[in-house]
Amino acid sequence: MSLSNFECPAARALDSVGDWWSILILRDALQGLTRFDQFQESLGVAPNILSRRLGHLTEHGLFERHPYSRRPTRYEYLLTAKGRDFYPVAIALFAWGNRHLPDDEVAMRLGDRVTGRVRSVILVDANTGEEISPANTTLLPGPAAGEVTRKRIAFMKALREQTHEQPD
Amino acid sequence: MSLSNFECPAARALDSVGDWWSILILRDALQGLTRFDQFQESLGVAPNILSRRLGHLTEHGLFERHPYSRRPTRYEYLLTAKGRDFYPVAIALFAWGNRHLPDDEVAMRLGDRVTGRVRSVILVDANTGEEISPANTTLLPGPAAGEVTRKRIAFMKALREQTHEQPD
Repeated sequence: MSLSNFECPAARALDSVGDWWSILILRDALQGLTRFDQFQESLGVAPNILSRRLGHLTEHGLFERHPYSRRPTRYEYLLTAKGRDFYPVAIALFAWGNRHLPDDEVAMRLGDRVTGRVRSVILVDANTGEEISPANTTLLPGPAAGEVTRKRIAFMKALREQTHEQPD
Repeated sequence: MSLSNFECPAARALDSVGDWWSILILRDALQGLTRFDQFQESLGVAPNILSRRLGHLTEHGLFERHPYSRRPTRYEYLLTAKGRDFYPVAIALFAWGNRHLPDDEVAMRLGDRVTGRVRSVILVDANTGEEISPANTTLLPGPAAGEVTRKRIAFMKALREQTHEQPD
């Protein structure tokens, strides 16, 4: 099922990524894997699924395929700018996963490469330095906002002004 | 297929979320929706799928179910702390989706609720204020790191020190 008819960029982003395997492929690629057999070894995924996912991500502009050997021709998959920009999504997901594990189940953490100190990941507005939260953030209509988006923004605003404000 | 046997917190996070619909349900819940019919109207999803997804997210501790009416009994779904903490993941995904759309296809943006200024979303380390990137970030083994994780961390480190460093 395609979600691309939604105007929400998060929904469209999910559609261009494809499925969970794609996110794990991107996770690996962001750590430097490029070759089919590397992805396969890392993920333990069936070759036909891996091949389909790499094709999907290439079609959607997250990877570029380059030959790295002739006879037989073999390709490596290099992240494009769009693919590399997926990094904050993978990191936000990683940080959320860890935050809700008991300490003794934490198998890996993100660290500062220079100091080795564990990273504490937050999302901020680069303009103001403010941590982004539901309480200080709102949706604005863009140039392509249709009736559905405008209605949605108005509805969400009305909801917030009523009883359902989520505690932060 | 379950990914929960992986030690990676991002993979485990995906497993606890479930599928794309769950992410869109969380997106809506983070904006204040709580009721079955609200989610259904927003998503246009089949009731049986919605019901299964809400059940999955409740089981995995992202929602708590509370009755809001008797005769007939109806429930609302309130985000737990774990569910509310999903916010940065949804925002990172939203921001990534928008960044790679042509300007005239942007239907909505994130704005500062006070000033109305468009937000520029980045991920930083709360300890240092530094923007988190593959170039300055590394994986550290946690208390539950098994053989697979330790090997993976060593392999990724070796890869980085070779030819496959991704440009930032």
